[in-house]
Order: sequence, then structure tokens, then C-alpha cells
Amino acid sequence: MNNFSTEYQIRINKVDEYMKEALKPYSDCEKVLIDSMNYAVFNGGKRIRSILCMETAAMLSGSAEAAMPFAAAIEFIHAFSLIHDDLPCMDNADLRRGMPSCHKKYGEAIALLAGDALLNTAFEVMIAHCKKGGVGTVEAMESVGRACGVHGMINGQVRDIELMASKDATEEKLIHLIEQKTMALMMTSVECGAYVSGADEETRKELVKFAYNMGVAFQIRDDFEDEEEDGEDAQNSPNFINTLGRERAFSEMNRYAEEAISIISHYPNNEFIMGLMNFLFKK
Amino acid sequence: MNNFSTEYQIRINKVDEYMKEALKPYSDCEKVLIDSMNYAVFNGGKRIRSILCMETAAMLSGSAEAAMPFAAAIEFIHAFSLIHDDLPCMDNADLRRGMPSCHKKYGEAIALLAGDALLNTAFEVMIAHCKKGGVGTVEAMESVGRACGVHGMINGQVRDIELMASKDATEEKLIHLIEQKTMALMMTSVECGAYVSGADEETRKELVKFAYNMGVAFQIRDDFEDEEEDGEDAQNSPNFINTLGRERAFSEMNRYAEEAISIISHYPNNEFIMGLMNFLFKK
Repeated sequence: MNNFSTEYQIRINKVDEYMKEALKPYSDCEKVLIDSMNYAVFNGGKRIRSILCMETAAMLSGSAEAAMPFAAAIEFIHAFSLIHDDLPCMDNADLRRGMPSCHKKYGEAIALLAGDALLNTAFEVMIAHCKKGGVGTVEAMESVGRACGVHGMINGQVRDIELMASKDATEEKLIHLIEQKTMALMMTSVECGAYVSGADEETRKELVKFAYNMGVAFQIRDDFEDEEEDGEDAQNSPNFINTLGRERAFSEMNRYAEEAISIISHYPNNEFIMGLMNFLFKK
Repeated sequence: MNNFSTEYQIRINKVDEYMKEALKPYSDCEKVLIDSMNYAVFNGGKRIRSILCMETAAMLSGSAEAAMPFAAAIEFIHAFSLIHDDLPCMDNADLRRGMPSCHKKYGEAIALLAGDALLNTAFEVMIAHCKKGGVGTVEAMESVGRACGVHGMINGQVRDIELMASKDATEEKLIHLIEQKTMALMMTSVECGAYVSGADEETRKELVKFAYNMGVAFQIRDDFEDEEEDGEDAQNSPNFINTLGRERAFSEMNRYAEEAISIISHYPNNEFIMGLMNFLFKK
């Protein structure tokens, strides 16, 4: 893969195009709701989850198409979670990717509803797709539902609140927290790609393990980025840097990334995902 | 039907039992999240939507069982919407059914997440059921998704915010508002009952029309109840009483209820739903 960034951008554009189409049937609804949903979704996100989803399918079946509705759904869920995370009663964040957060731009009530609407939209997109049939579609939708809900991300957000209040973060507690808060969506991304490709259970579980390791590495990388961007702010919430120290956090990131790479290296047609791993962890 | 109240309570207990079972798999998750979800769901609600759903199926097919997962999902969605509606950035309601609202009891962050979790749970319950197969299950799930989202309830909540701000409520605007905010869930309740009973399109549409008329009547009835409970508070938000006056609101309620009754009266095995209509609108 000669020019990874170009290839990556092509995929971002594909997901964004699909998500724009998915939101179009809402164009006759209340403008402020549609505007706020679009504002929160199309904010320059890296689309890492949706691209993982599509590229898992592409690696296994040669085509990313069947994974697209799930990729988009997961991205809508990610956007919903960020809107609600930013609200004053949660992280009270005025900025998201350098722009006013959704509630700063549209007010709290509309932001709350935009988040609700994006969660609902995620399921609407998946249900419409499942209705057409196709290998593994209901299983994929089930996986997304589980990853987002009380067995996944939302429970992880509660763990985050509790860990922040307790002020006794350890590496074990952090892993326990991000397993749900961050990695559940990463893992379902890869699992959906495997389901719609008709992968067997062993392959699916191995790829979820890849996503687990990749997810921890990604979270530590994110903590380093946050530290650069936010400076002191990042010190207040429990993260890998202030829990492990910079040096150990860095070596742990590499250890998890290497584990992920060693899993994915067995697969034929792994060029893009290997490129992604190098892009994220080797530069 | 000799003792409608007893029959009604039996159905409330059935739905509640099913919902309790549906939340049990979460018992190993964060206690405060599970507690707050249970607090918001089991608060003495009338379960009107879920009972409509089950009784539509019972009327058409002789059994309410197939409708149960959808009935419960709609009730979870109703509970989610009330938690978020009560939040300070929305209605800022300290009380719900005479008890502290979810955020008053658990704090805003947990209440926000409990609402999110209940919306997600609604889909998880329906997906698990759809996976087993069965007549009309995916169509029913699609109907619920549409009724809850940007084409339904959530858009209706935005309309509510806008109508409240504009202070120019008319009967037409109120109907336009509650079509989504209140009636979308009523209509999908009945539609789900029809879908899982394998009803033909004509029957389904006629029953949705019943739900539409019943829904308007129910909303006006609710406005009268709110007026009794809240006194002056109810005057501030646009409703049928302060828009039409008490006398016209009452006659409109009866007109819509009569229309609903005239539709349902054609159906054999309509005893319970007729009993419900009498219970709600004739006492």
C-alpha cells in the first residue's frame, strides 16, 4: 500500500456518503433536529470504527459493501455517545474537534434529542437492511445492540463516572472501564464485518481478539493525543498516562498493538488493516 | 366484561413481569444504572401502549404472546422518553407520578444514561425476538423504530419545544405535534399487534386509524388530568384545554373517542379493547 492516507480518505468519503444518504429521508422533519444530527456526525471524525467494520468484511470476503449499514450504524452510535458525553451533566465539554460541541451550538435540549435520534437512526438503518435478508445481518445487528447498551458502551460510561468519583484508578480498573466504554464498539465493528462475510465462529472470535488488542492500543494512543491537546484537563480524568506513567503507557500501547498485528498478520488480504495499524502505531 | 379493572390489572402484571425478565440479564452490570432503569420503568405506569399492543394481537389472533416483546419494547421507549423529558434542559420536572423524577433520584448523568440504555434495551429485546423468526417480527420492529425516531416521537419532542417557544398554538398545530410526540407510539403499538398476527394491510391500516383517533382522545384526556394535578403549570405548555377551551376540548375528546369506538366495533373479540375505551372515556 503505497499511499495509505489517500486510501484511508477514500474510505472515509465512502462512509460519509452512505451516512448522508441514510439521513436524507429525514429531510422533511424539523430542521433544527436534522441540522444538529448532521453537525454532530459530519465533524471530521476519523471513522476508525466504520472503516474497521468495512475492511474486516473486505479482508474476509473481498467486498466491504455488505458491512456498510453496520459501519454507518456504529458511526451514528459513536456520534450519539459523543453528544451525550459532552453535555453539561457529563463532561461539560464546550468543544469537540475544535468546534463548539453540539449543545453549545444548538442548546442542550436539541443536543439531547439529536443524540437520542442518532441512536434510534442506527437501529433504523440496520433494521431496514436486515429486512432485505443477507448472511449474518440479524447477528450483526444483535452484536451492535449488545455493544452499545447495558452490556457495553453505556455501562462503560457509568463505570467512567464511578471511577472518576472514586479517584483510585489502576491499570486493571482502566482496562475494565474501556473494555466497555471504548472497545465494545471497536469489537462489534470487527464482529459485524465477520458476520456479514459468513466467517466461522473461530475466525470471528480471533478477529474480535484482534479488535480488543487494537482497541486498548488505540485508547492509550488517544490518551497521548488528549494530553497534547488538553494539557492539564487530561490529568483529571483517569487515563493510562496518569495511571501508568508516560513510559509504561507507551510500552503498553506497543505491546497491545503488536499483539493485534500478530493476529491479523495470519490473514490473506490484510494489506489495508496492516496499513492502518502501521499508520496508527508506527509513525 | 364484568370487572374491567381486574382484567386490566392482570395485563399490567403480565407486561411488568415480562419487562422484569427482560432486564434480568443486566443484573451483573453497574448497580446504579440497573437501579435507575428499574426505577423509571416500574413506577406505576398505566401500560396503555403495551396493553393496546397485546390486546390488538389477542383480538386478531386469539393470543397476545407474540406481541409481548414489542409491547415491552414500546414501554421501555416510553420510559426512556419520560426520563429525558423530565431532565432540567427539557421540562425540568422534579416529580413523575408523585415520586422524584429519575434525575432527582439518581442525578442527571445517570438519568441521561438510564434513558439511553432503555432505548437501546428496547431494540435489544426486539432483535433477540426477531432472531427466532415469526410472522411480521421484522416489520413490527421497523414500525417501532420509525415511530420512536426522527419520523416519530423524537421529532415530536422538537416540535413541542418549538411550539412552546412560538406561543401560537392552534388546534391544527397541536394535532401536528401530538401526531408524533404521543400518537406515534400508540399507533405503532397497535400496528405491531397487527403485524405479529399476520393481519392484511387493510386491517392494519384501519387499526392504525383506530389508534390515531384513540390517541388524540387520550391526549386530551391527559390534558384534563394534568390540569387537575398541576394547576397553573399546565397552562404554560400548549395543550388542548388552553387552546380550545374546556368545553370544546371535552367535545373533541368525545368525538375522537367515538370515531375510535366505531372502528373497533366491527371486530369480533373486541371485548377488552371496547372495555378499555369505555373505561377511559365513558366513566
